[in-house]
Amino acid sequence: MKELVIELLNKRGVTVEPIAEIAYDLQVPYNPELTLEDCIIGVEEVLGKRDVQYAILTGIALDKLAENGALDEPLASIIKSDEPLYGIDESLAMAIANIYGTIGVTSFGYLDKKKVGLIKKLDNDLQKGRVNTFLDDIVAGVASAASAKLAYQAEEGRSKNEKEAL
Amino acid sequence: MKELVIELLNKRGVTVEPIAEIAYDLQVPYNPELTLEDCIIGVEEVLGKRDVQYAILTGIALDKLAENGALDEPLASIIKSDEPLYGIDESLAMAIANIYGTIGVTSFGYLDKKKVGLIKKLDNDLQKGRVNTFLDDIVAGVASAASAKLAYQAEEGRSKNEKEAL
Amino acid sequence: MKELVIELLNKRGVTVEPIAEIAYDLQVPYNPELTLEDCIIGVEEVLGKRDVQYAILTGIALDKLAENGALDEPLASIIKSDEPLYGIDESLAMAIANIYGTIGVTSFGYLDKKKVGLIKKLDNDLQKGRVNTFLDDIVAGVASAASAKLAYQAEEGRSKNEKEAL
Amino acid sequence: MKELVIELLNKRGVTVEPIAEIAYDLQVPYNPELTLEDCIIGVEEVLGKRDVQYAILTGIALDKLAENGALDEPLASIIKSDEPLYGIDESLAMAIANIYGTIGVTSFGYLDKKKVGLIKKLDNDLQKGRVNTFLDDIVAGVASAASAKLAYQAEEGRSKNEKEAL
Repeated sequence: MKELVIELLNKRGVTVEPIAEIAYDLQVPYNPELTLEDCIIGVEEVLGKRDVQYAILTGIALDKLAENGALDEPLASIIKSDEPLYGIDESLAMAIANIYGTIGVTSFGYLDKKKVGLIKKLDNDLQKGRVNTFLDDIVAGVASAASAKLAYQAEEGRSKNEKEAL
Repeated sequence: MKELVIELLNKRGVTVEPIAEIAYDLQVPYNPELTLEDCIIGVEEVLGKRDVQYAILTGIALDKLAENGALDEPLASIIKSDEPLYGIDESLAMAIANIYGTIGVTSFGYLDKKKVGLIKKLDNDLQKGRVNTFLDDIVAGVASAASAKLAYQAEEGRSKNEKEAL
Repeated sequence: MKELVIELLNKRGVTVEPIAEIAYDLQVPYNPELTLEDCIIGVEEVLGKRDVQYAILTGIALDKLAENGALDEPLASIIKSDEPLYGIDESLAMAIANIYGTIGVTSFGYLDKKKVGLIKKLDNDLQKGRVNTFLDDIVAGVASAASAKLAYQAEEGRSKNEKEAL
Repeated sequence: MKELVIELLNKRGVTVEPIAEIAYDLQVPYNPELTLEDCIIGVEEVLGKRDVQYAILTGIALDKLAENGALDEPLASIIKSDEPLYGIDESLAMAIANIYGTIGVTSFGYLDKKKVGLIKKLDNDLQKGRVNTFLDDIVAGVASAASAKLAYQAEEGRSKNEKEAL
């Protein structure tokens, strides 16, 4: 299923590397030795989780259905216009952000407001007839989860080194 | 929007009263003076919340799209079969259950396992070609939120009576 | 209980107005007619919620116990140093942020990273022997919830005006 | 840290096996080949997660502080009496239940209502001067997370077998 999810993301203009770049920017202040390669591995691992795959399949389906006019009103207009009080896209993405614990959710909130890198680009595509209401939050959720994973990994590395130094 | 959401629920076989009955059964052990009428008012209030309305619109749309063959694979089969590890329906419903605080979420978990009353009926309809994957959880979420609301109300009533008795 | 919670916050250096200022800054971009007075009322309403009061009582108790050396190790050091992977403070605060729906949680994530206004000040106090590990997140949670409440209110105002204009 | 957390649980009357039994009862209906040994391994893995360890340390600290009279009023009485609207214990435990995804949270809600096995025993201890307000929910949270983990594992096993059978 992981390959299928990555293919689906690719078709919607999302590849692993720009998500990894967002995770890198989130995490590098706390871990200066971090590399983009680490972040790519982290994003791949997040995309390997069943829960994440289901959230991505569902969110992209809703974007595409809104784009193709297959949703009834008022839901069609709400999703198309990314109506500010519609929080289902954020809910779905927070379930992704949360898979390695709470710290992923705070990163998600930050990204959701700041709309950096690929997230900004997807948000702008809305003006060109594309519906990315769920997709931009999914990208933020995956980047946040990957960043949380890397934070736990770095901490485990430190604990291990301390023990070995004793 | 509230009328529209209630109409949509009606078309899918769900009315306010059986949801209120579930809320009543959840709450009456803690509050013996509770009436079904109180619970109907509670359910109506939950259905008046914008967040709840958006979750209901989205969940029912996914059920209908799965029913009508409008979703791509593998999502179509996952939703149709209410695949046990697919947790998006529960996530959506927990956002409803949670609107009056944490205690709604524990009630939701209980209802999700026990499948009482209307929830059981909706679950059985699955075998007749209907897709109620989201709908049965929505009903459990609304009943749980209404029950949480009534719990807070009862508590506020008690606090007020205690003060007046001083 | 609301008075008691406000008094407890005051003793820890937190008053309603600077929380309202954070809520104002979050919400004014979407609602230019917003006043600080609206935000003060919003914060007061959040502090009137039982769930919020319980979270504040619990979080401040943990800060004070850490400050007074009443916690066992390793928890004492973890809370005192606001250890980055300790997410219980954020969890507690997100339960506050969430009381008017998901949009409060994204604001919370943003505030948690940016540490604006009073939140920054509380965070700095840590260096002076005070433990505000829970308190800074509580402030961010209350401001986020108030901001979410004002967003819903503004939207309801708009819907009502549209109906009346017809 | 894992050893320390298990030792702390032991001192409060909680060992791994009865938690594993609860996880077994939750999961065996869906996976008849499951053994108690699988569940013990699952519980151990949950207890190895940093997020879970922090939640356990914090919850048990609050139980002990309430027991020893080290908390201020009204929090002391609220925790001692396991006041029904106090949801912080459930919040903390749901963060545990949630570490392998949403399905853990619904199991938690069920256990929280039904109070099976060890959970019932801990709940009864309250009447003997012990405060287990957080501990009973922690046990339910760990059992739910372990059960969710086993559900995902079983599913991955099935997917792998299907592929190999092709």
